[in-house]
Amino acid sequence: MKKAYISKNVIRRLPRYLRKLDELRAAGVERISSGELGARTGLTPSQIRQDFSCFGEFGQQGYGYNVASLREEIAHILGMDLQRSVILVGTGRIGQSLIENISFERLGCRLMGAFDIRPELIGTCIGDIAVQNASGMRNFIREHGIDIAILSTNRTYAHSIAEGLIAAGIRAIWNFTEEEIDPGESGVIVESIHFSDSLLELSYYLSQQRNDR
Amino acid sequence: MKKAYISKNVIRRLPRYLRKLDELRAAGVERISSGELGARTGLTPSQIRQDFSCFGEFGQQGYGYNVASLREEIAHILGMDLQRSVILVGTGRIGQSLIENISFERLGCRLMGAFDIRPELIGTCIGDIAVQNASGMRNFIREHGIDIAILSTNRTYAHSIAEGLIAAGIRAIWNFTEEEIDPGESGVIVESIHFSDSLLELSYYLSQQRNDR
Repeated sequence: MKKAYISKNVIRRLPRYLRKLDELRAAGVERISSGELGARTGLTPSQIRQDFSCFGEFGQQGYGYNVASLREEIAHILGMDLQRSVILVGTGRIGQSLIENISFERLGCRLMGAFDIRPELIGTCIGDIAVQNASGMRNFIREHGIDIAILSTNRTYAHSIAEGLIAAGIRAIWNFTEEEIDPGESGVIVESIHFSDSLLELSYYLSQQRNDR
Repeated sequence: MKKAYISKNVIRRLPRYLRKLDELRAAGVERISSGELGARTGLTPSQIRQDFSCFGEFGQQGYGYNVASLREEIAHILGMDLQRSVILVGTGRIGQSLIENISFERLGCRLMGAFDIRPELIGTCIGDIAVQNASGMRNFIREHGIDIAILSTNRTYAHSIAEGLIAAGIRAIWNFTEEEIDPGESGVIVESIHFSDSLLELSYYLSQQRNDR
């Protein structure tokens, strides 16, 4: 199943299902129909059945999905049962807020280190992670076989630092710099959060409202 | 054209096209073919032609797209030519980093105010915006007809504050709390950036690599 092709749109919805299933589990719900799940996710039951059919059948006609096992299967597909090693590169406000607000362990990730070039930040702690001098970053990545680098530096340095990360053998870059990071032929995965894209999508939907303009 | 239906996936790609077209314009490129644009965006030329056909024809067979006019049309579709009034609700690290890193003016937005409940933050400045007491938020929204609220509070308060924003007549909530904000029947637009969803997508693509597991 692991290598089976699943479309980007389905992958984009999986974490959403996961959040809903966690809520349901916390509420003590053991089974849910595609209809109920649709009502909670704003998707159609047929869309949901179609999404889940991409990676095998969980539901039984008229019986619904087992919340716990569906949740575990989605978590497995998303690689949450693997321990990803993560470093933070750029410990400014955005980087710090990510460390404070994201429960990496729950997502199957382990934060191993944080790096910056600013002397006033080196040696300070973010949570229980001490900020190291970026000069030691490449060796750290090689020694610890780091999987993911969170790139949250000033955008001015984004490209040069990304090159360094790729050269050091990082496998994925989680990019918050608003710059377009091109992994070239490296095969490195780049997942970017472009804040401005999201705001422009919101702006579009505003402009579609009857009372707009 | 404004009311014409454009699929969510096309809308999601428009800001990406916009960034590329801005780069091209800055580089002095006047025309580009769907093939070149595809190479720069990682999309197929046919996908690009299909996307642009959703809102009228810009290209000419064998002649390519006019970068400037295509850029302006996309900006118009995204509502960037409208002045959206924006407030920031929750002036912690994430909120502050958004103010520092996003050029609201360029995106057709104007930051009008910032609000928090923490006495130590009220009266401080973020850029040239003074943080106000959240108790005055509803009146401020009504008086200034605020369009968009950036919700970047502690997730504990997310739902109650969102209710207050909706009651005050906000038109859209840009949600960074990692909570699911339900606008109910209000018609308020909610655009959420779920950091953990993005990290899980990245984790999925890592798990698809040959050398993984």
